[in-house]
Amino acid sequence: MELHSQPVMPRGFQCASVNCGLKESGTDLSLFLSEVTCSAAAVFTLNQFPGAPVIVGREIMKNGRLRAIVVNSKVSNVGTGETGIENARRMGLAVAREFSVDAGEVLMSSTGVIAKPLPIEKIEGGIGDLKQHLSSDPLVGAQGIMTTDTYPKALSLSVGSATLTMVAKGAGMIEPNMATMLVYAFTDAKIESKNLDAMLRKAVDTSFNMLSVDTDTSTSDTCVIMANGLQGTVDEDAFSEALQFICTEMTKKIARDGEGATKLLLTEAVNAFSREEARIIAKSLVNSPLIKTMAFGADPNIGRVLMAVGKCFSCHVRPERVEVFINETLVYKNQARVDFDEDKVRKLLSGDKVHIKVNLNEGSGEALAYGCDFTHGYIDENAAYYSS
Amino acid sequence: MELHSQPVMPRGFQCASVNCGLKESGTDLSLFLSEVTCSAAAVFTLNQFPGAPVIVGREIMKNGRLRAIVVNSKVSNVGTGETGIENARRMGLAVAREFSVDAGEVLMSSTGVIAKPLPIEKIEGGIGDLKQHLSSDPLVGAQGIMTTDTYPKALSLSVGSATLTMVAKGAGMIEPNMATMLVYAFTDAKIESKNLDAMLRKAVDTSFNMLSVDTDTSTSDTCVIMANGLQGTVDEDAFSEALQFICTEMTKKIARDGEGATKLLLTEAVNAFSREEARIIAKSLVNSPLIKTMAFGADPNIGRVLMAVGKCFSCHVRPERVEVFINETLVYKNQARVDFDEDKVRKLLSGDKVHIKVNLNEGSGEALAYGCDFTHGYIDENAAYYSS
Repeated sequence: MELHSQPVMPRGFQCASVNCGLKESGTDLSLFLSEVTCSAAAVFTLNQFPGAPVIVGREIMKNGRLRAIVVNSKVSNVGTGETGIENARRMGLAVAREFSVDAGEVLMSSTGVIAKPLPIEKIEGGIGDLKQHLSSDPLVGAQGIMTTDTYPKALSLSVGSATLTMVAKGAGMIEPNMATMLVYAFTDAKIESKNLDAMLRKAVDTSFNMLSVDTDTSTSDTCVIMANGLQGTVDEDAFSEALQFICTEMTKKIARDGEGATKLLLTEAVNAFSREEARIIAKSLVNSPLIKTMAFGADPNIGRVLMAVGKCFSCHVRPERVEVFINETLVYKNQARVDFDEDKVRKLLSGDKVHIKVNLNEGSGEALAYGCDFTHGYIDENAAYYSS
Repeated sequence: MELHSQPVMPRGFQCASVNCGLKESGTDLSLFLSEVTCSAAAVFTLNQFPGAPVIVGREIMKNGRLRAIVVNSKVSNVGTGETGIENARRMGLAVAREFSVDAGEVLMSSTGVIAKPLPIEKIEGGIGDLKQHLSSDPLVGAQGIMTTDTYPKALSLSVGSATLTMVAKGAGMIEPNMATMLVYAFTDAKIESKNLDAMLRKAVDTSFNMLSVDTDTSTSDTCVIMANGLQGTVDEDAFSEALQFICTEMTKKIARDGEGATKLLLTEAVNAFSREEARIIAKSLVNSPLIKTMAFGADPNIGRVLMAVGKCFSCHVRPERVEVFINETLVYKNQARVDFDEDKVRKLLSGDKVHIKVNLNEGSGEALAYGCDFTHGYIDENAAYYSS
C-alpha cells in the first residue's frame, strides 16, 4: 500500500482553521466538514476524568452519523463540570447554525490546559470566520489542532476509486504541553457506520492502542472516522486493510514526533504465550524509562531488555528460552550474551529507529508497540512550564 | 520514634569493605557478619529474570538462619545461566572458608551490569582481605555496595535494650548505573525467624513496595533482616513498629537520592474504595512522568493529577467526588479548580518535598507512595552510558 505524496481531503470534504484568540499566534480552531451526512464511528479515551467533549461526543456518536467536527487547541475543557458540558454543546450549536447542519451531527474536541473554563465566546466568534477559509488541504485543518507537535500531520491513500485521509495531533499525552491524541479520518467511500466501527476498533487495536509517548493517558483522546459515500462502495476488506495501514503509519508519525523525541522506538514480542501477553511485554519495553534512555543513548543494553521483560510478573517468561534482538542483531540467547559486533549495532542505533525484539519461545502471541526515546527535550517541555 | 544521630552496628555485628578490583576506585566488596548464627528473613525481587544470587538466596533463606552477607557492586551476576549460579555459590563458600562459618548461612548479593560474567577470582581474592577491615560502623559496609547512590545509607534506632540498624543502596532500578535496591537490617534482639519474616513483609509492604524511582523493577532487589539475639528478647510489637519506621525512613532516603532526583515526591490516596485501589492510584501518581516533571518544575498542575487518577481504569473514580491537595493546599473540588494562592503553593513546591494528596471520597482505603522528581540528571545518567 502506498501513501499519496501530497495528502488531500476526499471528495465532498473540506476543512478550515483560524485564530480565534486562544493562542497568541497560529491557528487554534479547526473545522472538518462534509457536504452530506456521513456514517461515522469513534473511539474515545478510557480516562475516568473524560473531557466534556468526550462525554458529549459519546452521546452524539450513538447515532453513527456526522456532518462536521470542530476542534480547538490551547484549552481542553476537562475537569470543568456542568459548565464544561454546556460549553461543549455551544461549540456544536455554533457550527450547526453557521453551516446549516443538524447539531446532533457535529462532534467537538478540545485539547490543552485542564481545569480552566473554555473561552466559549472567542470560539463562537471564530466559528463565524471559518467559512471563508474552507480548503481541500487537510494540512490546513491539521494546523489548527496542533499543540506541542512540531509539524501538522495528515496522510492520504486510495482504496479503489475512494480516498482515505487521516489528520492527527500527538506529542505528549496531556497538558501543560496541551497535548492529547486526536485523530480524524475521512473517506468518500460508502460504508455503514456499524462496519466502520468494527474496522476502526480493529485498526486502532494494533496501532494507536500500542502507542505510548510517556505512559500518561490523556483525558481527551479521540479517534473518529467519517464516510460520506460520494464515491460509492468499495471492497470493504481492502478498505479495512487500508485503514489499518494508515493508522499504523500515523502511529509511527506521532511516536517519532513525541515530546522531545529524536527517534522512533519499536518494541516487539514474538512467540509469547498469548497475544495478550505479547502486548503486555511489548508495552513494558516501550514504556520503560531505562529502555527509552538507552534508545536516546544508542547503547545495546541487554540488561535493560531482560529487566523490562522480567518485570511482566503475570506473563510466561522462562529465561532459558528468551532471545533478544536489537535492530535485527541477535544479542542474547541460552542465558548468555551473544558475541556480536557492538560497534555495528551502536551505529545502527544511532540512526532514527531503534527496534527491540524479544522471542519468548512460549507460544504464538505477537505484538508490536510504538514509542520514542526519552530525552532532555521531554524534561524541558514538561518541567519548564507554568500551568496557569 | 527517633533515629540515632550516628548509626552503629548492633552488638555482635561487624562489617567491612574493600576494593577487590571491580571498580577503579572506592570499595566494591562488602561483608556483614554476626559472631553467632542469626534468625533471619528476606524478600526478593519478583522480576522473572532474577539474578543468580537471588536464585541461590531463596534456597538459603529456607532455613531462616544467617551468619553473614557478602555483596559486590559493579557486576550483577544476572542473565548468566548455570555459571552464574556456580559463581554465586563460590562467593558464599569463600566467606564460609575465610570466617569458619557454615556456607548455608552466607547470603550473597551482586549489583551492577547485567549479562556479564562475574569476575569471581577477584571477588574470592577480595574476601581474603576483608577480615583486617572489620568495623562497627555500618557506613563502612554501606560504602562497598554503592552504585549510583550519591552517599552511603545507614540508619539505627533503639528498641528496648536492642539496636536495629539498616544499610541500603538505591538510586535507579538497574544498570547501566549499576543500581538496584539492596537493604540489609541487623538487630541484636532475639526474635524467631518466622516472626521476623511476618514483621519484614508487613514493613516492606508499605515502605519499599511503595517506592518507585523509575518504574523499572531490578532483577536483584533484596531486603534481608538478621537477628542475633545477643541483647535478649524485646517487645515484639514495639520491634515491629520500629522496623516499620526504619523501613519508611530508608525508603524516603532512597527516593530522595534517586537517579537525578532533586526532591522527594510523596503521593497519597485517601478514602479510596479499597486499600488496593488506594495503592494503584498512589502508584499511578508517583510513576507518571508528567507528575514527576511537574515536581521538578514546581508547578501546581491540577490537570496532570486528574489525568493520573483517571487513568486508573480499574478503580472507582467519580470526578464529582474527587478533591486534590498539593502540599496541603486544596486546589480542586466539586469539578472545578479552587481559587488558591498559586504563588504560595509554587514557593512550597520549590522546596525539597512535593506532596500530592487525592481524596476519592469512595471508601476508607489509604496509601502513600514514595518517589522523586524527573530531571535532566536522570537522562544524563541513563543515556550517556555504554553497557560494555
